Amino acid sequence: DRPLTLIAGPCQLESADHAQMIAGKMKEACDAAGAQYVFKASYDKANRTSISGVRGPGMDEGLAMLDSVKKAIGVPVLTDVHTTDQCAPTAAVCDILQIPALLCRQTDLLLAAAETSAAINVKKGQFLAPWDMANIVTKIESTGNQRILLTERGTSFGYNTLVTDMRSLPQMASTGYPVVMDATHAVQQPAGLGGSTGGQREFAPVMARAAAAIGVGAVFIETHEDPDRSPSDGPNMIYLDQMPQLIETLMAFDTLAKANPMTF
Amino acid sequence: DRPLTLIAGPCQLESADHAQMIAGKMKEACDAAGAQYVFKASYDKANRTSISGVRGPGMDEGLAMLDSVKKAIGVPVLTDVHTTDQCAPTAAVCDILQIPALLCRQTDLLLAAAETSAAINVKKGQFLAPWDMANIVTKIESTGNQRILLTERGTSFGYNTLVTDMRSLPQMASTGYPVVMDATHAVQQPAGLGGSTGGQREFAPVMARAAAAIGVGAVFIETHEDPDRSPSDGPNMIYLDQMPQLIETLMAFDTLAKANPMTF
Amino acid sequence: DRPLTLIAGPCQLESADHAQMIAGKMKEACDAAGAQYVFKASYDKANRTSISGVRGPGMDEGLAMLDSVKKAIGVPVLTDVHTTDQCAPTAAVCDILQIPALLCRQTDLLLAAAETSAAINVKKGQFLAPWDMANIVTKIESTGNQRILLTERGTSFGYNTLVTDMRSLPQMASTGYPVVMDATHAVQQPAGLGGSTGGQREFAPVMARAAAAIGVGAVFIETHEDPDRSPSDGPNMIYLDQMPQLIETLMAFDTLAKANPMTF
Amino acid sequence: DRPLTLIAGPCQLESADHAQMIAGKMKEACDAAGAQYVFKASYDKANRTSISGVRGPGMDEGLAMLDSVKKAIGVPVLTDVHTTDQCAPTAAVCDILQIPALLCRQTDLLLAAAETSAAINVKKGQFLAPWDMANIVTKIESTGNQRILLTERGTSFGYNTLVTDMRSLPQMASTGYPVVMDATHAVQQPAGLGGSTGGQREFAPVMARAAAAIGVGAVFIETHEDPDRSPSDGPNMIYLDQMPQLIETLMAFDTLAKANPMTF
Repeated sequence: DRPLTLIAGPCQLESADHAQMIAGKMKEACDAAGAQYVFKASYDKANRTSISGVRGPGMDEGLAMLDSVKKAIGVPVLTDVHTTDQCAPTAAVCDILQIPALLCRQTDLLLAAAETSAAINVKKGQFLAPWDMANIVTKIESTGNQRILLTERGTSFGYNTLVTDMRSLPQMASTGYPVVMDATHAVQQPAGLGGSTGGQREFAPVMARAAAAIGVGAVFIETHEDPDRSPSDGPNMIYLDQMPQLIETLMAFDTLAKANPMTF
Repeated sequence: DRPLTLIAGPCQLESADHAQMIAGKMKEACDAAGAQYVFKASYDKANRTSISGVRGPGMDEGLAMLDSVKKAIGVPVLTDVHTTDQCAPTAAVCDILQIPALLCRQTDLLLAAAETSAAINVKKGQFLAPWDMANIVTKIESTGNQRILLTERGTSFGYNTLVTDMRSLPQMASTGYPVVMDATHAVQQPAGLGGSTGGQREFAPVMARAAAAIGVGAVFIETHEDPDRSPSDGPNMIYLDQMPQLIETLMAFDTLAKANPMTF
Repeated sequence: DRPLTLIAGPCQLESADHAQMIAGKMKEACDAAGAQYVFKASYDKANRTSISGVRGPGMDEGLAMLDSVKKAIGVPVLTDVHTTDQCAPTAAVCDILQIPALLCRQTDLLLAAAETSAAINVKKGQFLAPWDMANIVTKIESTGNQRILLTERGTSFGYNTLVTDMRSLPQMASTGYPVVMDATHAVQQPAGLGGSTGGQREFAPVMARAAAAIGVGAVFIETHEDPDRSPSDGPNMIYLDQMPQLIETLMAFDTLAKANPMTF
Repeated sequence: DRPLTLIAGPCQLESADHAQMIAGKMKEACDAAGAQYVFKASYDKANRTSISGVRGPGMDEGLAMLDSVKKAIGVPVLTDVHTTDQCAPTAAVCDILQIPALLCRQTDLLLAAAETSAAINVKKGQFLAPWDMANIVTKIESTGNQRILLTERGTSFGYNTLVTDMRSLPQMASTGYPVVMDATHAVQQPAGLGGSTGGQREFAPVMARAAAAIGVGAVFIETHEDPDRSPSDGPNMIYLDQMPQLIETLMAFDTLAKANPMTF
């Protein structure tokens, strides 16, 4: 199996400079640790808890920032799409289109994304069982696109709480597609702060490590140099300066896991 | 308080004749029982479990069918919208625009719907706490629209299962807006049949009665003359010929409940 | 069907006088409303959240208090048992032995209780599905005892939270035994205050009404003249002086429900 | 930190020979891998799903078997207690008394166990939040006993399903006591087969690995040479002949985890 991929970046795009800064530091850390790297950031947070939450620069400006990351840093980029008409222009820049968890059952969005030349990363809905992802895979495959990633980001567990069922990783892997562990969204507390979403940043490395030990294809981590001042998802993002150490540790677990593959 | 409203109809539009037939029978039953009536049916099932699930006639044909119901039967009509561009044309025909549960946090959709002249019925997401609906209400109110209904349709409870927390009815009512109990979706088993959603039709009247006893503003029930042959949601829809009796009973509970209002 | 039974009393026994005072007021209210009445109180709270929680007078003193209620007020009494050796002496005084929810799978306790001449009320464990109660019924029936009641008191729903699934009432009723809705424990927040259990007293009538509308055999309510000063379960107990009105309303719903029995 | 301890054995005691056979093979495997080893088996399954489930040899015979393991194989032994009067005699033989998950809030049982000279392993109830274990620790510490282990074995997640929240491992570790991952009970499906409990044996190594990567003190695994013929818990026990390889892998993860301790 190939070594672990790290999908990482800030929750939302702030500026081209900021995006390149984070992508640059992350690429350096991944190169040092032998990990593959994909830059991630959103140009629109379309489902903020509150109407007053900052949404981001929008598609046109955002794609320009992503394009600048791609060219300046030389890494593949991933972003999420929310409507069918965002798919083609986004795929003109991005290597991977991501389907947000809450939208993972919207057939038209899945098909429009799948019909581009991009790979598709579907986040498993908080309301879905792992085996339900097989139906979503079939929707995407119906277009002929077989470049699919499936991401675990936590499941509804009572109110304002998510839980990550580690069994979902092998269960989704049984589709034959790579599985991603989204370590920072999995520790969110949705709307847990009333008008915004809380999080338990300190437990994101727990999720990442556990997933690496199981042998996932990729780990997804949102990171920021100053999470508490970021425009969204501050409570669960990891400090940028803690990432190199974390990546190095994850790679050690990945190497051990892939030398001892699990069978199901 | 005003007497109970019944929001009822088939899961998806099949034909103008079929829609009118169901609307006609329902209006008759509601008139007999003293209930207000709103016809409901969908023109597009945009998030079917499986790619092969029947989706419905589409917006243009569907709106024509809804318009025919409105004119021929003389009842208000409700349907759901899934994209921002569906909102204005749908509001040209329908009295109430419904936001599907999975889309209840999509800010643009909420705003586009709210900016029409229609009333907005938001289904509470299966991943949301009742008190989180206050944030959604604020999004809608930001447009000046204060014709809002809030619907309980069950919350994720483990895998492929929903549970209805009766406390959500008074909790949502504390926003000041009418609360709707969606009795048939609340007994769904999402993706419970693998490639489609199961349901426990026999328990829908349990949910409807319990909600009526608490004093909700409306009950939402999907109904069909032959549910097992309907193109979607068969396992949870109620037989059309059982509706008059059910409505009569619900009205008796509604009358008793509203004569004895609960205080919280 | 017979009219609704009310099982009610303080969470724990405080004194013979206190028990008789509550039993007396409750009997009066039930007589006035046409409800049957069973007095309930515990002599030992064996599973308090905290080691420092008050546990009650113990079995010997407690049974004397219960006996005094029985003789002075002339009502049947119910209390819970926690060990096999409590069953026989408790059954010498009490009409109904109650199996606590957390102990509902302890085979020896079920058998020891069932082997007395008392009726057995089993509270469904917070960790159990409604249909799992069939296995518990079989354990009790194996002794020849067929005087069984089954109680809903909420199911684990994330952390420190319970949810009541109204479907459990008909599902448990399908065993053929009477079903009880425990309206005050169902609104507990287990360990929700850290060192003790929280509760949402204001929602207990919601649960009671919904259950009465479905047609349960009994409603279980803990009540106290000053809940915030009671030694346990204060946050969820209902004020004693609010009970007569509540009982009257519940009886109106019960009458309506039993005139319109549900079929499953 | 000390290397991983393996707590392992058959679900229930079958005979002295059988117990010694399993303990012998496990000790050999643990010695080879550098793991500490504790033998586990139950003499009474006091809360079987069904009245017809086999319960085991009982305390007297069972303790004799455990004593024979201790002497013949030279390993510490652990078993569970269900009543206060089992505690002293069991502690006369066993090094660790285990409190079953469903009984973890029974104060008298906790105190009676804690008052022996044994160490106490408390399984976290399926209905408990990780932080609620602090109250249980306080109960045990009130006796002066500070030899405590805390075990994760899954949390109620809808009906007939458990989920393991990996965050519970560091959360319980914050008490200062060693944390145990019970990998085989965590994959149970309680009462999932109607009259007995199902399980997903194939996922037990997933849980064990993830926990080892996080750096737990011990992993608990039930094992049997022929699980499908064992008197209880067959669906989730691991084949005995697969244990040496699993232990070796877990030790590799344990070594890596403890060289890179997590901070919270």
